[in-house]
Amino acid sequence: MAQNIINIPNTFNSETFCADTFTPENFDLFSYLAIAKAKVEQALDRSIKVKYPEKIYDSMRYSLMASGKRLRPILCLATCELFGGDDRMSMPTACAMEMVHTMSLIHDDLPAMDNDDYRRGKLTNHKVYGEDIAVLAGDALLAYAFEYIADNTENVPSDRILRVVSRLGRAVAAEGLVGGQVVDLESEGKTDTTLETLNFIHRHKTAALLEASVVSGGILAGAQSEDIKRLTIYAQNIGLAFQIIDDILDITATSEELGKTAGKDIAAQKVTYPSLLGIPASQIQADNLIDLAKSQIQCYGNSAIPLMRIADYITARKY
Amino acid sequence: MAQNIINIPNTFNSETFCADTFTPENFDLFSYLAIAKAKVEQALDRSIKVKYPEKIYDSMRYSLMASGKRLRPILCLATCELFGGDDRMSMPTACAMEMVHTMSLIHDDLPAMDNDDYRRGKLTNHKVYGEDIAVLAGDALLAYAFEYIADNTENVPSDRILRVVSRLGRAVAAEGLVGGQVVDLESEGKTDTTLETLNFIHRHKTAALLEASVVSGGILAGAQSEDIKRLTIYAQNIGLAFQIIDDILDITATSEELGKTAGKDIAAQKVTYPSLLGIPASQIQADNLIDLAKSQIQCYGNSAIPLMRIADYITARKY
Repeated sequence: MAQNIINIPNTFNSETFCADTFTPENFDLFSYLAIAKAKVEQALDRSIKVKYPEKIYDSMRYSLMASGKRLRPILCLATCELFGGDDRMSMPTACAMEMVHTMSLIHDDLPAMDNDDYRRGKLTNHKVYGEDIAVLAGDALLAYAFEYIADNTENVPSDRILRVVSRLGRAVAAEGLVGGQVVDLESEGKTDTTLETLNFIHRHKTAALLEASVVSGGILAGAQSEDIKRLTIYAQNIGLAFQIIDDILDITATSEELGKTAGKDIAAQKVTYPSLLGIPASQIQADNLIDLAKSQIQCYGNSAIPLMRIADYITARKY
Repeated sequence: MAQNIINIPNTFNSETFCADTFTPENFDLFSYLAIAKAKVEQALDRSIKVKYPEKIYDSMRYSLMASGKRLRPILCLATCELFGGDDRMSMPTACAMEMVHTMSLIHDDLPAMDNDDYRRGKLTNHKVYGEDIAVLAGDALLAYAFEYIADNTENVPSDRILRVVSRLGRAVAAEGLVGGQVVDLESEGKTDTTLETLNFIHRHKTAALLEASVVSGGILAGAQSEDIKRLTIYAQNIGLAFQIIDDILDITATSEELGKTAGKDIAAQKVTYPSLLGIPASQIQADNLIDLAKSQIQCYGNSAIPLMRIADYITARKY
């Protein structure tokens, strides 16, 4: 995707997009994503400097800087822009979302959890640094995420930043991705997992942090409670669709395409959307969720084009 | 210590202590600690309710509600009182400090780290709930600590609460207890660890969170930068003294007294203050640090009696 960076349409400012200038004709999703990803990765690179004891900073940076889609930070930046905010307001929170996401990947990959050797096309953190350091790198990324938001957010009233701290905490703790991971672990090896349980897992393990990313972008820019409701529904639906597509790709894509082990769900006899409904019906379900998500933000007109197209991208992606 | 709760001197209000009323004659440390501990444990008990998926909430509560000294929350409450604040301002942060401390114990006890079977007189978290849940319970406690501060702190301006979020993050992440634990792990099995390295470990692994507890109590109550400096030096010194005493007790106390495995340092041939300096010189060093700590808060007169006596208690404790 990196080569798209040089094909930036003139209507885009490389520093901050102006939501007012988007039209269905001039908006190019891949340029938008490439520019946003480059900005996010530059900010992530600056967010952690290596010092003594180097091993822990190396370990944190190893997983944080491994290439990813950076979907959570991009959603945070895009939502902040939609409500008239800029990167100085949202970038620290955007980075924090990626730090927390990275923490969850490092800990999920541990031998005591999913026991994975590859992630984002590289050896998993514990394979390189050892299990002890991997646990600690996750802990450090999680704690640092909150510190980073508190210390670096500019031009936002403190009460809004505190609301973001609260949303991020809830998205990670037992009411969020930890709760989802627990039910996921409990359902391993069970063949009678219901669609209800599966939705609980996806809503918590995947959608919660996507929701926090989107909603936080809105909060920082001063979105009102009615907007926050719309953003919440948008994010929950793209979150569930994202996971359904992930489960489909686990069957249809190669490990190389995914950058992580493919075919894991079938090998583990794991109940997924495709295993319950089949691939075509799962794809339709994901498409319906995306339509529902988009209907929530239609009222914002052309300014919502980035969030609309990101939603489409979630079901169209191949990795 | 629980029986002391019924022997409350009349000069103490069981809800909130009034720092103005302390005198060297009427202050009874054990009543003070017992009352504060009971208040903290009541608040901790209320902070986490069990719901679906029950296992993770049970696991979090198992370690959080295991009896401990509750030194970090008590220091937070006491410092807030010293600057005229009350429990509504400080209790959420006090609870958060204990949540974070508990997270660090759960993760430190994991097989991949110190591999301990007992903590606070009970089986360690992973021995009861499994390694996967223990990792996740720690993650959830850490994230929830920040959410809990943001959502529950009353009568404090948001910018002060954000400063507390930042201090807590720094105390935990790679510049705090994670960094200390990394150097501690690296020095395992080494016989040439220097006093400088040992001090780095103790300052980060132990003192950082004690410092955050003390300083946060001051920040919440509106302490000025000169006060924060004094509190920082006080906390760093009692933190280092606390760890020196811990190392002495590892040699002199029984596992039953400690509620965790005794004699671990010698078994692991770990370099400690006692192994470098001997027990008597280590005790003197701890006493000197406590004197230094107390000299920083002498200027606050009788109001500082609780923090003075807690400092004394750190070197006098037997478990």
